[in-house]
Amino acid sequence: MKSHSRSHLGLGIVLLLGASFPGARADEGMWLYSAPPRHQIKAKYGFDLTDAWLEHLMKASVRFNSGGSGSFVSADGLVITNHHVAASDLQKLGDENNNLLRDGFHAPNLAAEMKAVDLELNVLQSITDVTDRVNAALPPGATGEAAAAARRNVIAEIEAASLRETGLRSDVVTLYQGAAYHLYRFKRYTDVRLVWAPEQQIAYFGGDPDNFEFPRFCLDVAVYRAYENGRPAKIEHYLTWSREGTREGDLTFVSGHPGSTNRQFTVAELELLRDVQYPYVVPWIKRVEVLLANWSARSEENARRAKEDLFSFQNSRKVHDGLQAGLYSPAIMGARAAEEKAFKEQARDLPGGGEILAAFDRIAEATDLQAKIYRQYRLLESGHAFFSESFRIARRLLRAADERPKPNGGRLEEFGDARRESLELALFSEQPIYPDLEILLLADSLTLLAEQAGFESPLVQRVLAGQSPRERAAALIHGTRVRDVAFRKQLYDGGAPAVKAARDPLIELARLVDAESRELRRQWDAAEEIKQQAHAVIERARFALEGNTRAPDATFTLRLSYGPVKGYEEAGRRIPAYTQFAGLYERNAAHENREPFNLPPRWFERKSALDLSTPFNFVHTPDTVGGSSGSPVVNTAGEFVGIIFDGNLQSLVGDLVYEDVQARTLSVDARAIIEAMKQVYHADALVAELLSGRMQKHGSR
Amino acid sequence: MKSHSRSHLGLGIVLLLGASFPGARADEGMWLYSAPPRHQIKAKYGFDLTDAWLEHLMKASVRFNSGGSGSFVSADGLVITNHHVAASDLQKLGDENNNLLRDGFHAPNLAAEMKAVDLELNVLQSITDVTDRVNAALPPGATGEAAAAARRNVIAEIEAASLRETGLRSDVVTLYQGAAYHLYRFKRYTDVRLVWAPEQQIAYFGGDPDNFEFPRFCLDVAVYRAYENGRPAKIEHYLTWSREGTREGDLTFVSGHPGSTNRQFTVAELELLRDVQYPYVVPWIKRVEVLLANWSARSEENARRAKEDLFSFQNSRKVHDGLQAGLYSPAIMGARAAEEKAFKEQARDLPGGGEILAAFDRIAEATDLQAKIYRQYRLLESGHAFFSESFRIARRLLRAADERPKPNGGRLEEFGDARRESLELALFSEQPIYPDLEILLLADSLTLLAEQAGFESPLVQRVLAGQSPRERAAALIHGTRVRDVAFRKQLYDGGAPAVKAARDPLIELARLVDAESRELRRQWDAAEEIKQQAHAVIERARFALEGNTRAPDATFTLRLSYGPVKGYEEAGRRIPAYTQFAGLYERNAAHENREPFNLPPRWFERKSALDLSTPFNFVHTPDTVGGSSGSPVVNTAGEFVGIIFDGNLQSLVGDLVYEDVQARTLSVDARAIIEAMKQVYHADALVAELLSGRMQKHGSR
Repeated sequence: MKSHSRSHLGLGIVLLLGASFPGARADEGMWLYSAPPRHQIKAKYGFDLTDAWLEHLMKASVRFNSGGSGSFVSADGLVITNHHVAASDLQKLGDENNNLLRDGFHAPNLAAEMKAVDLELNVLQSITDVTDRVNAALPPGATGEAAAAARRNVIAEIEAASLRETGLRSDVVTLYQGAAYHLYRFKRYTDVRLVWAPEQQIAYFGGDPDNFEFPRFCLDVAVYRAYENGRPAKIEHYLTWSREGTREGDLTFVSGHPGSTNRQFTVAELELLRDVQYPYVVPWIKRVEVLLANWSARSEENARRAKEDLFSFQNSRKVHDGLQAGLYSPAIMGARAAEEKAFKEQARDLPGGGEILAAFDRIAEATDLQAKIYRQYRLLESGHAFFSESFRIARRLLRAADERPKPNGGRLEEFGDARRESLELALFSEQPIYPDLEILLLADSLTLLAEQAGFESPLVQRVLAGQSPRERAAALIHGTRVRDVAFRKQLYDGGAPAVKAARDPLIELARLVDAESRELRRQWDAAEEIKQQAHAVIERARFALEGNTRAPDATFTLRLSYGPVKGYEEAGRRIPAYTQFAGLYERNAAHENREPFNLPPRWFERKSALDLSTPFNFVHTPDTVGGSSGSPVVNTAGEFVGIIFDGNLQSLVGDLVYEDVQARTLSVDARAIIEAMKQVYHADALVAELLSGRMQKHGSR
Repeated sequence: MKSHSRSHLGLGIVLLLGASFPGARADEGMWLYSAPPRHQIKAKYGFDLTDAWLEHLMKASVRFNSGGSGSFVSADGLVITNHHVAASDLQKLGDENNNLLRDGFHAPNLAAEMKAVDLELNVLQSITDVTDRVNAALPPGATGEAAAAARRNVIAEIEAASLRETGLRSDVVTLYQGAAYHLYRFKRYTDVRLVWAPEQQIAYFGGDPDNFEFPRFCLDVAVYRAYENGRPAKIEHYLTWSREGTREGDLTFVSGHPGSTNRQFTVAELELLRDVQYPYVVPWIKRVEVLLANWSARSEENARRAKEDLFSFQNSRKVHDGLQAGLYSPAIMGARAAEEKAFKEQARDLPGGGEILAAFDRIAEATDLQAKIYRQYRLLESGHAFFSESFRIARRLLRAADERPKPNGGRLEEFGDARRESLELALFSEQPIYPDLEILLLADSLTLLAEQAGFESPLVQRVLAGQSPRERAAALIHGTRVRDVAFRKQLYDGGAPAVKAARDPLIELARLVDAESRELRRQWDAAEEIKQQAHAVIERARFALEGNTRAPDATFTLRLSYGPVKGYEEAGRRIPAYTQFAGLYERNAAHENREPFNLPPRWFERKSALDLSTPFNFVHTPDTVGGSSGSPVVNTAGEFVGIIFDGNLQSLVGDLVYEDVQARTLSVDARAIIEAMKQVYHADALVAELLSGRMQKHGSR
């Protein structure tokens, strides 16, 4: 997901808003499986979403706890996702001699499949509405923190009881900004092994410059296999692979886990983003990007180590630039303000209209409070002041010791019983940590702290302890033992006395700021709670006025989107819906095979064997955002026809507003995956398993 | 000049400060030609600086108005400087079909030499102390703005009179923070033609990653020829080329134009830098760097167009990171504070001691004022809010119309008579301006303005005029005519009525903010004036206490530095003083010829002809900073033995403090230049001219 020409985006927004805002919403929506858009699809496309069709797709959809989506594509546990979702695993499995990210990977048989270091997959099994139960647990008239604590408590209870009863991971998810609470139960897979991945160069062809652009030419695909009890997992609900793929105009569905959207934000919340959050966070992203890019350039080994982090910051920078442009667009902000005004006028006439208007005011007050503490909150509680993997571990050890003795409902969310296994998986991960990069990052973030809080502030003086940021960072990283997993286990098991006795300098630094950091979190969460309660009031009013005609904002939970395969116009030029392998070789030649437009050698060697007219990437209109990456694309028969890997530049405002004039979701065509696996990678057994849905029994695997 | 490992730098500073601060200053100093360090050099090295030796070197030294140094190296006008000083000319002379920056240039004869678009060279002819005359013109008791105006007036008079009398460019330069004023007269050359430049790849081998590192392997050299009346200029004072070069331990001299240092800053001024200026400007540099890097990556042509700007921002980022680390180093800041305290204690006992202490207080008050307006000043008056070449031209046209009718002494400095020719040269430059990049830069800087001043502030609303930053930038750049040089001439000649009648949208934007911008400049300059007067008081006290034993801070005027060729130790490793061509090929191979460690093809083709043991780059201890780039290095015989192109990481605190334990100046060896020109570039006539000092008469030239 990644480069854009700024001018196009700005102009694009203006054109479309005149036409589509705030009226009809075309195929907008990342829909709940418990409330699918049956009527809209029936009315517009004449297609019936049956319960069986939905259940099959739901249970074939996979959530990656590392942040992304995927799907089962064989009865023997094969899972397909994006290469960029798999990238952190590829990095962790590689070392100085085996650069899996760069060179790709292929296990010719089960024995060669490599277990991912700390990957967890979740598969949604059921959805239960627990809104009434959550609301009933709130003491009458409770507001602010008291309400939040009561809600945390009941949610923890519901989750713990469900886990006990079913053995399934159980998360209560908040929807419609708190107007609804649903219990999601997941089957977990923690033995997940890498089967196949191409070279990053073809997965991410065009690199950061082509990120968020179309036409595109990316084989952004990786294949894993889920295991249970040391054997390939037996999967009932997996997607049948379509040999025919799609044609322009075909209806497609996307089933995945869009991360988050803010389409229900009030104007006050948008202003908080625009005036407080983005002016801090956009420069912060660029600062870390410059640091990582610079360090990577010093040696090939540095580049390998930082590649994933750099990728993620570059991507994030583009997303934020795109969103910020939306926030500074009078067309978007004006439309949102007009919409809010119109809604308030309608709401005034509803029963309890005064309460609805007051809810808007409460949100504005809460955002004022958040504006005041935002930077401190980011520096301390989000850890920007100590930005390093070592500090994250140190703080987690410190807090685990403090939190675990508390009753489940009274703990910080990440230490709840329902998240214990995931916490331990992350905490005891053998993922390599590089001291030189850690020193660099920590020194820069201590510098940021000094810039933001003032060098002579008591906080900074306490943190730096008489040293310069560079000296302090070197001393802390050299002095800490948190890179040693055995040490972490010892402290985690030993609790507060063991943590204290260790006198680890980085844990002691975390302790030094912990009271202030927790207080910031308390205030921040209290404001969030006020907003959530107010939003629940507003959303209930919206139900009353509009009915259940909108999907909730994205929350990294499973959603269904839909829309046709469709090209678009840009600056007077027609952009066709599909690219082909031929275009890949043309773009490579235009850049004389220079990075990041170079190709792995076998793509030249095997060019003559490839059918160059094979559809490679395509664009369609389903509503998606970051987190949707790796989602399967299926046709009306429920067959796998492609996999999502990006959106175009025009889609970057999707956090705030959906459009289908120019904004498009980008997918890899199922036909290209098979053709490349067969002709370029000679992965014949894998191809056979994908096309047949069963593992092949003959000798080669 | 460019990458660094942060940890080394911090540690380096600590080590050296214990030893050398604030006592003996080794070979510190960028000395005035009018007050050379005769005694120090005689005492330490037994060498006599004679008047003739000094005059010869002074008149052979050349200042590039584009920011850099150089020297005459033949009687027929050859001037040698760094490739990176020449880079902006190479860029301007190239186009889509001729990438001079990338591919290099060689004029085989006079007719092929290419005239630089807007280059001006200055050669210092004389120095006259005018301190008394400047001070006498100040009305008794005048302070603040009145004093500044009076001083501006008398300086403009002195400059104008000198220009009239001698025909020489005449600048009054401020030294010792205003304790001294000297009249510098320069011979100007404006017909300057490019003779030879290598590929940027070998000039800047290792790129940004190796910038500010040593060992290094850079042929950072370019050759021009100065012309007069259409013929090669006849030069009396040029440097003889040394065939023998230097050996470790040899005394070297550097004659060039170090840009600026702040070694006399008070603690209050350092705090202004640390707490106000750097927290703004470092993120600003990184922001523009990310923008330029991202745009460059989209296509080869973009990369060519932005290369110089990107280079400059990357370089600046490293310099600022290094300096900021110094400001956040308790060792450096503590030593500066201790030094100031000790000085105040001594000064208290001098006659007028109270006035000296009061001067420190006045400086602190002035910095408080500057702290308040700093960001607004940078946004509006420095133009960060409208960061584009088009805006710079637009504002210059607007202000030229307002300023030129005023009496010379009452004008903004850049519109004074003494600077008229230089102003017009820049204003009417045919340098290409790329609208797409201009839109990108302007949109980003309007976004910065909105971030800093608040989107809903009256200023931002007025500037954006109802559009988003991207829309507004596109409208302004598409709408303005300032890219047309004929249009600029018409407005410049037509004055205010012509400017007004043109209704150019970008000029009107400049007008919109001009009153506020000028007011910020007035306040800023008034504070600078207060500081300058206070510094003059302090510096006079310092003379009284210490005698004339310190060189003044650098001011982009000609200075002489000295020190031996000398390796150093880093992290327990001995770094030899010289590299050789052999090391270049080794580093290239270690990076498998990947960018930015790749070599131009002819360096492989001609490798066997090269003497690989030729000394390539070397390190020595003379005191230099940015602006010294391109300065000739001479031996005691006054012969050219090398050319400065960089400093190492440890030298980056040079703005604040000199050291010679680890900090080093980096130079290209004269022997490498000849060997490369001869064996790799077959520039035989050029080599013959450099070695003989005369243009060759035979056929080939």
